[in-house]
Amino acid sequence: MSAMAPAALEKLTGLVAATFTPFTTQGEINLSEIGPYIDYLTEKQGINSIFVNGTTGESMSLSVTERKILAEEWCKKAKGKMDQVIVHVGCMSLKDSQELASHAAQIGADAIAVIAPSFFKPSTADVLKTFLQEVALVAPTLPFYYYHIPAVTGVNVPVRDVLEDIEKLIPSFRGVKFSGSDLMDFGQCVSYSQPHWSVLYGMDEQLLAALAMGAHGAVGSTYNYAGCHVNKLILAFEKGDLVQARTIQFKMQELLSYATKLGFDLGVNKQLMNELSGLCLGSPRLPVMPCPHAQALSIAQKYHSIFPEQ
Amino acid sequence: MSAMAPAALEKLTGLVAATFTPFTTQGEINLSEIGPYIDYLTEKQGINSIFVNGTTGESMSLSVTERKILAEEWCKKAKGKMDQVIVHVGCMSLKDSQELASHAAQIGADAIAVIAPSFFKPSTADVLKTFLQEVALVAPTLPFYYYHIPAVTGVNVPVRDVLEDIEKLIPSFRGVKFSGSDLMDFGQCVSYSQPHWSVLYGMDEQLLAALAMGAHGAVGSTYNYAGCHVNKLILAFEKGDLVQARTIQFKMQELLSYATKLGFDLGVNKQLMNELSGLCLGSPRLPVMPCPHAQALSIAQKYHSIFPEQ
Amino acid sequence: MSAMAPAALEKLTGLVAATFTPFTTQGEINLSEIGPYIDYLTEKQGINSIFVNGTTGESMSLSVTERKILAEEWCKKAKGKMDQVIVHVGCMSLKDSQELASHAAQIGADAIAVIAPSFFKPSTADVLKTFLQEVALVAPTLPFYYYHIPAVTGVNVPVRDVLEDIEKLIPSFRGVKFSGSDLMDFGQCVSYSQPHWSVLYGMDEQLLAALAMGAHGAVGSTYNYAGCHVNKLILAFEKGDLVQARTIQFKMQELLSYATKLGFDLGVNKQLMNELSGLCLGSPRLPVMPCPHAQALSIAQKYHSIFPEQ
Amino acid sequence: MSAMAPAALEKLTGLVAATFTPFTTQGEINLSEIGPYIDYLTEKQGINSIFVNGTTGESMSLSVTERKILAEEWCKKAKGKMDQVIVHVGCMSLKDSQELASHAAQIGADAIAVIAPSFFKPSTADVLKTFLQEVALVAPTLPFYYYHIPAVTGVNVPVRDVLEDIEKLIPSFRGVKFSGSDLMDFGQCVSYSQPHWSVLYGMDEQLLAALAMGAHGAVGSTYNYAGCHVNKLILAFEKGDLVQARTIQFKMQELLSYATKLGFDLGVNKQLMNELSGLCLGSPRLPVMPCPHAQALSIAQKYHSIFPEQ
Repeated sequence: MSAMAPAALEKLTGLVAATFTPFTTQGEINLSEIGPYIDYLTEKQGINSIFVNGTTGESMSLSVTERKILAEEWCKKAKGKMDQVIVHVGCMSLKDSQELASHAAQIGADAIAVIAPSFFKPSTADVLKTFLQEVALVAPTLPFYYYHIPAVTGVNVPVRDVLEDIEKLIPSFRGVKFSGSDLMDFGQCVSYSQPHWSVLYGMDEQLLAALAMGAHGAVGSTYNYAGCHVNKLILAFEKGDLVQARTIQFKMQELLSYATKLGFDLGVNKQLMNELSGLCLGSPRLPVMPCPHAQALSIAQKYHSIFPEQ
Repeated sequence: MSAMAPAALEKLTGLVAATFTPFTTQGEINLSEIGPYIDYLTEKQGINSIFVNGTTGESMSLSVTERKILAEEWCKKAKGKMDQVIVHVGCMSLKDSQELASHAAQIGADAIAVIAPSFFKPSTADVLKTFLQEVALVAPTLPFYYYHIPAVTGVNVPVRDVLEDIEKLIPSFRGVKFSGSDLMDFGQCVSYSQPHWSVLYGMDEQLLAALAMGAHGAVGSTYNYAGCHVNKLILAFEKGDLVQARTIQFKMQELLSYATKLGFDLGVNKQLMNELSGLCLGSPRLPVMPCPHAQALSIAQKYHSIFPEQ
Repeated sequence: MSAMAPAALEKLTGLVAATFTPFTTQGEINLSEIGPYIDYLTEKQGINSIFVNGTTGESMSLSVTERKILAEEWCKKAKGKMDQVIVHVGCMSLKDSQELASHAAQIGADAIAVIAPSFFKPSTADVLKTFLQEVALVAPTLPFYYYHIPAVTGVNVPVRDVLEDIEKLIPSFRGVKFSGSDLMDFGQCVSYSQPHWSVLYGMDEQLLAALAMGAHGAVGSTYNYAGCHVNKLILAFEKGDLVQARTIQFKMQELLSYATKLGFDLGVNKQLMNELSGLCLGSPRLPVMPCPHAQALSIAQKYHSIFPEQ
Repeated sequence: MSAMAPAALEKLTGLVAATFTPFTTQGEINLSEIGPYIDYLTEKQGINSIFVNGTTGESMSLSVTERKILAEEWCKKAKGKMDQVIVHVGCMSLKDSQELASHAAQIGADAIAVIAPSFFKPSTADVLKTFLQEVALVAPTLPFYYYHIPAVTGVNVPVRDVLEDIEKLIPSFRGVKFSGSDLMDFGQCVSYSQPHWSVLYGMDEQLLAALAMGAHGAVGSTYNYAGCHVNKLILAFEKGDLVQARTIQFKMQELLSYATKLGFDLGVNKQLMNELSGLCLGSPRLPVMPCPHAQALSIAQKYHSIFPEQ
């Protein structure tokens, strides 16, 4: 998190880890693990920006109060260590989102992000934009990202339509976390994007495809434990070494495919992080189920066999 | 709301209105309209039980605090006028649901209901049952209903599987609001149901089908303004006059089909209620959009042409 | 199949069995089993009309030539034994459908039925109606039925919209096989239907719901082996004995639910018919897989425990 | 179509046009347009291989006889002009597919391709592989391609699972036409592919993404009229000029997005081809609807404004 200059001036690029929320064994939020978590990301994974209280962070399973406490701790502990902390403030309820956006501004978050509400689904790009605008209005100085993840929300509005003239509605607009497989829509977002926007890709298993299409960076949960490898993928891509980039991407796909066959949900993902990082992030909250130890262990072993270097 | 006897002893039957949440023109909750609303339902529609803070009530667009205030007011104003007030306490977050369930017990609600969480979706009946149990545990004396609405939540776990041995987990279990079109699952719920349970149907447009399958009652939004007609449908059905029951059902279908062709979402439904009842329930909250006046008026006119008697 | 009077004059009611196609052990069509099959249906199941070469008959896995040979044999063997033989002539290709429709007229079928093409899906009711009309035109004297089964075809055009003024396009139109769960659409079809039309329901597991909504009859695969029981359901319904009708419907649901949990596809269904009837209808064709003997046997045992009377 | 060497020895790469089927104004197949069509593709679009009787070719709307006649004419006219003619022989019916595969071998097709049957859907990779094997068996010397297009067929079996040990079942197996957006599955297919296989991508609007992932070539309908531009995209990609490749991809996306907003189905696509090529391919067959002239003209104008160079 930059200390002096307005974060708005730095364009967000590279890898961003979508963080898990640490819980105690009693299932309460566990602030004490946040500091070590940040150190792990910077020191072991080469990760310099985080997206907190998102899907990976189980935000929809948290109360508004818990989200505030977590956001505050993430910002505090990231200070001087992370480039940017993006706080996800999207909720089903506009009122709750506004409360969190306003709070994010107070605690010095670098940016906020908002997912489409998914219980009542916006029927058009205009409705969605109006909803996003109402959130952005209470934190007008914070860089604003739209978070698109149609497989989870069921909201399939083309992002390109959301971007159309969006700075007229949201002057603080700065980009998109695009977690979808429609790369025509993605490409058009890149093509339309302003120089100070970041079009970030969110399906870790096919990042290379999005890089080819012009992605400026990526946000994902696997970068918590495989950021060190994916950083090499990006480096290879930037040097024009597609063969090397592809090799790393295929390894990630092999890992994720293996995990998928065993059953790979957020609970498994979290336990895999515990195994690989040594952190104690606990189990997920209901309705996400905890992962049997053996299952996470098996995936961790696969990880080590695919990436023996680390 | 029964004054003396435990509500648990009365089996819920007949029509239950899923109430809209009244808002002011500024978009804040409007408690002053709740009293007149209850009078309208009892006096004009013959409705004696209500399901508050559900989907129709835009609960997911409300903050937890707003839901508490509303629940309290509904219970207070319903006292002596309504047979039962079921307070829906389902949220994406288990913590929030527990807080609302505990509050419902304190304010004297007759029952609580819980929808399946839909952002993170329970993958099996067992996971869903564990989630429901965790909510029920904090309000063990309140009759408990599961609210099934797969088209909205995307949670398609067969309800019959949820019911299996559920009283071992939730001794206060009392029934289901079944808002789905799978009448095999519905029939099996009726067949399996205990004498003190209520299996209530929630797709107003095909209630007659569910009655034939053994529904004990119905919960729906259209009973807010068409309860008087649907009460006659139920009466005809109970007397064995299927022709008359069918005639009324077909009229409801004609109305809803007309509305659907114009575009019929919760915002339209709410404005239609305003038109037909004369109440001032306001507009919905984002992301549900307000309904153009002309559209609701057109549906209201259709209503009057289909049901000229009232 | 009526010998003298034009079939068009008799309104189709009651149960219609959607027949399986008999195959030899080599996977070729087996005409020799058709005679015994018809006898079994009339004598053991009380079934007097059949729907051949439909989904249950694996029509889409047959060549046009095979469908012709089968249709001819069904009509020949049904003569004097069955009231009506409806030959399904729907194909992906309009040309093929027309060839089969023309052939059905030549062989003396009582009626034809056409499913919506599902590879290229009609985008509107008008497109679908035009397609149906083009088929009907080559067999203008044959009663024509539209076959609606959206879960299989993915064509979700409301049937009520298909029916609108359809006799202007298809003077021979006589009804619908409605195999969907949208009973609002179904009810509106019943409400709109002309006196000489038959609105037939096709989801066996919830027939009672459709009867309440006014169904004139039913077409289904389970009537091949459970027609004798479902005939009693219909009789009870017609006498106003809903409790008895419901009891039988619940038994059918118990059976089908049991089968579903074991895995219930067309291959299982066919083998179950072999077990229960003693006929030798063979295995299905790829891509439908044959059913392990033990699985069909287990469902057959369940059948006998649920319906011990037979 | 190579004259001497067995086609099997040449690995299929580059662009392959999925051809439209020419119809007369009476809606019959129009063989006379096939010669000029091939000349147009080679001379104006730089296309040297074709995929005939596929989805773009409306194969499912053709009779088996028509498909044979067409396949024969395509092969005859392509001789000496095209590198490879892949004849798609997939049908709903295995019998029909086998008849077409056998015929393709007789007429000297360079390869055959088979889509997953979509009325009865294979439930697992093994079932699908068995189906494909049964087709391949009747034309064992012809290179065999699996055609994956889940959005159309609804068959979502991971292609990587289909490829597993497939040469044991189908020794003539040579590759995949992958028309899906799951680039993890696609990447794993590339990673697993044998040197003599071709993993071809089929979503024209995001080809660049697939190239980054290692695609060996592409099959699509837009290469009929935009092959000349997409050839430049591939050339730029191969030279490592991602900026130029992206520029062309974005132009294609702009065109297709424009068309999509106007309504872009196979009928529109075919009429657009007529406009841009000057060929007379006629209208599509029901249930695909013909395209209003003005709509195709508008898209053609967009094409010329985006690609002024041609």
